[in-house]
Amino acid sequence: MSEELRHADAEALQESLTVVQTLLARHKLVEELLRKQDMPRQELVASMVHRQHLTELRQKLEQMHPADVAYVLEALPLEDRLTVWDLVKAERDGEILLEVSDAVRETLIAHMDSEELVAAAETLDADELADLAPDLPHEVIQDVFQALPVEEREQLRSAMSYPEDAVGALMDFDMVTVREDVTLEVVLRYLRRFDELPDHTDQLFVIDREGLLKGVLPFNRLLVNDQDVEVHTIMVSDFIKLHPDDAAEEVAQAFERYDLVSAPVVDSHDKLVGRVTVNTVVDFIREESDSELLAQAGLREEEDIFASVWNSVKNRWTWLAINLVTAFIASRVIGAFEGSIEKLVALAALMPIVAGIGGNSGNQTITMIVRAIALGQIQPESARRLLHKELGVSLINGLVWGGLLGVVAWWLYGSVHLGMVMTAAMTLNLLLAATVGVIIPMTMHRLGRDPAVGSSVMITAVTDSGGFFIFLGLATLFLL
Amino acid sequence: MSEELRHADAEALQESLTVVQTLLARHKLVEELLRKQDMPRQELVASMVHRQHLTELRQKLEQMHPADVAYVLEALPLEDRLTVWDLVKAERDGEILLEVSDAVRETLIAHMDSEELVAAAETLDADELADLAPDLPHEVIQDVFQALPVEEREQLRSAMSYPEDAVGALMDFDMVTVREDVTLEVVLRYLRRFDELPDHTDQLFVIDREGLLKGVLPFNRLLVNDQDVEVHTIMVSDFIKLHPDDAAEEVAQAFERYDLVSAPVVDSHDKLVGRVTVNTVVDFIREESDSELLAQAGLREEEDIFASVWNSVKNRWTWLAINLVTAFIASRVIGAFEGSIEKLVALAALMPIVAGIGGNSGNQTITMIVRAIALGQIQPESARRLLHKELGVSLINGLVWGGLLGVVAWWLYGSVHLGMVMTAAMTLNLLLAATVGVIIPMTMHRLGRDPAVGSSVMITAVTDSGGFFIFLGLATLFLL
Repeated sequence: MSEELRHADAEALQESLTVVQTLLARHKLVEELLRKQDMPRQELVASMVHRQHLTELRQKLEQMHPADVAYVLEALPLEDRLTVWDLVKAERDGEILLEVSDAVRETLIAHMDSEELVAAAETLDADELADLAPDLPHEVIQDVFQALPVEEREQLRSAMSYPEDAVGALMDFDMVTVREDVTLEVVLRYLRRFDELPDHTDQLFVIDREGLLKGVLPFNRLLVNDQDVEVHTIMVSDFIKLHPDDAAEEVAQAFERYDLVSAPVVDSHDKLVGRVTVNTVVDFIREESDSELLAQAGLREEEDIFASVWNSVKNRWTWLAINLVTAFIASRVIGAFEGSIEKLVALAALMPIVAGIGGNSGNQTITMIVRAIALGQIQPESARRLLHKELGVSLINGLVWGGLLGVVAWWLYGSVHLGMVMTAAMTLNLLLAATVGVIIPMTMHRLGRDPAVGSSVMITAVTDSGGFFIFLGLATLFLL
Repeated sequence: MSEELRHADAEALQESLTVVQTLLARHKLVEELLRKQDMPRQELVASMVHRQHLTELRQKLEQMHPADVAYVLEALPLEDRLTVWDLVKAERDGEILLEVSDAVRETLIAHMDSEELVAAAETLDADELADLAPDLPHEVIQDVFQALPVEEREQLRSAMSYPEDAVGALMDFDMVTVREDVTLEVVLRYLRRFDELPDHTDQLFVIDREGLLKGVLPFNRLLVNDQDVEVHTIMVSDFIKLHPDDAAEEVAQAFERYDLVSAPVVDSHDKLVGRVTVNTVVDFIREESDSELLAQAGLREEEDIFASVWNSVKNRWTWLAINLVTAFIASRVIGAFEGSIEKLVALAALMPIVAGIGGNSGNQTITMIVRAIALGQIQPESARRLLHKELGVSLINGLVWGGLLGVVAWWLYGSVHLGMVMTAAMTLNLLLAATVGVIIPMTMHRLGRDPAVGSSVMITAVTDSGGFFIFLGLATLFLL
């Protein structure tokens, strides 16, 4: 725990932001005045006031936790953000860069010169540096790398060698290790020689002379046992061991299932190489669910809300392009039935309802199945059973809602047959949605691809074109 | 750490599931045989084999961690699930019920009688009981309540009195407290009198005679300082304090920002009443992001993938009904222009493209803004700036994509004017999407409502009806 202010509730945090904004506003007002009036005396006074606001602002920032400074930076438009960033003490730059979102980090780094970046990077641990490295210019990395002690250089190299979604990218190197043949008294004496233990140390790692991991000694056991007991008699030897290549998502689930605070990482020879802590896991979970939510709306990555129009256009265009292609295909399906629509214009008004309900229902199916796959609840054998269930749901929905809309169509356009075609088309499109909604994610899963990506676009494409085709096709067959 | 097997990777967990499934399948095969053949000797042999599979299954389950048994139960169809549930030892029922998803918990509870439920509930702590209580029959709660000691009864009453999204519902009562005027040696001696410390104890709470919270003593400080130092000289007095009424979402963010493992909860007089631990927070975060994802597809709550068709229909019908209403309104907008479509049937084929791109773009805007609101990055003052930016993005997209589709329409239908109407309509619908995409979530936020709920339905309703109206309206004005 440090001397910085910390806020448990969002309101207090919001207040800090308001203070910063007020000081910034005053500062800008004075700058405005300075520019307008150039009489020497006034300038003098104004520039004193000017400096005073910045000093107050700097003091306010110094009291704030790095994560809270990051929050303030994210909530400010670019110009204000850079003013505040310049006021942050250089030695805090590194930890704040770690806390801000990727999009905002880019704007801050773009504003710093190499020297500042090297200085900021040098305040960080190897595992933290590895997180920051992808955003840093190559020459900065080189400089920092040269300046590191050999051990940390190795750690950095190893941390950077793992993909973002592997345990190797989440782990840090702040382990406290003990031997198994010493007493707890010795352990306690050893711990008192530290100025401070690494954050999230809830257990010590028991290793032998070769660095092989023999067990873990949770503080819970260290503290409740007699001091003359030896480590090996109370250490836990059946514990969760991670490997650098393990998938981060699976490890996150293990942390959740077993309520872990930290877990050791070992290489293929069982040698202790690092540890993963719950705070990293929490960040990972939040980022994952965030990017899932963004991906669903076709936002490629988190977008700084104050990003330029141009950057936003780039971030969003892929999705729009894909959707235009599928919409265009659906449009050509309708085009093929223009003759029918000319004869019975009611079809044009009713067809979006058929397509729409298929899309909605298909998205419900796909969301449920993607989620169950992610939780590991679905085996390939379950596919048939799930398909049966989804078809059952669709049949009921088709008969109920399709029946209702059929009656409405009959009432609106005075044609029983149009109503029957409406009911049949809605039911068939719902059955199509269920089938495709089960098959798409299951197939992607079997092919080893992430079923969450793109499933929603595909199902909408199918139910739109399919819905138009079924409805207009049935109408052409039976009504004209 | 207990004696149960635990798996760090999903594969090992999957294997456990496969073992269970194989044993179940064998068991069912034998049952099948028993039913078909009723010769006494064979029956005898078969029933021995029969029992043997169940015994093996029971042993397998006993080795598994409660969270893993929960996983297996969730991945099995109802009938198999209940077979496995009957094999689980009664004294583990309580902790497993806590781990399974709400939907699966309902199926298990429905299968148990009052006596079993009371027995399961009695194995739990007050805070765990409070989590389970909403799903239990009223008379079971009454029985359990009567059986509790006075202190726990009070705790249960208090835990149940808070809404699900308040800190009061997340907290537990497993605090270890010390006085400020004792030495660390005394503290260590005190801790050694415990058989075991509560899970996630990373700090002790320092209270006075009245139970008022004076500070916290992190293990990190307890372990590195000299034993003859007194608690008050090293305790942290500027720490995060929660209140039972705090919003759980804000507390989750505080845990993330400050990397907490546990935090004390105090009442309005600063009296220590409980604590929140990171594992509860992780579960809360996962549930929140889960229900957000489900809500986006209109699934009211998590749905057991093996739920009956009827339960699934009920879970999904609200969303389908709402969407049918908005689709019907859009259909009536088209209906109003039937005369125009009759004259120029190309309009029917092109109109879904205009509506579609508006919906996609609007959903991108709304997703980004809802997320920024949730992170507290948007103040009411930013609304105008954001609107400008979103309008800029839409204008560019409208001119680029609208221009492209305009040329395509011209080429397909040989009418420059139709192409120009297409471009204009797409641009205008994108501008409409941007405006509404900013205004809807900002207004809901200002009214104190959750902007994530229903925003997506509303924007699609507006861009569908709006898109049809703009396109068909422009066409009627300029082409006919």
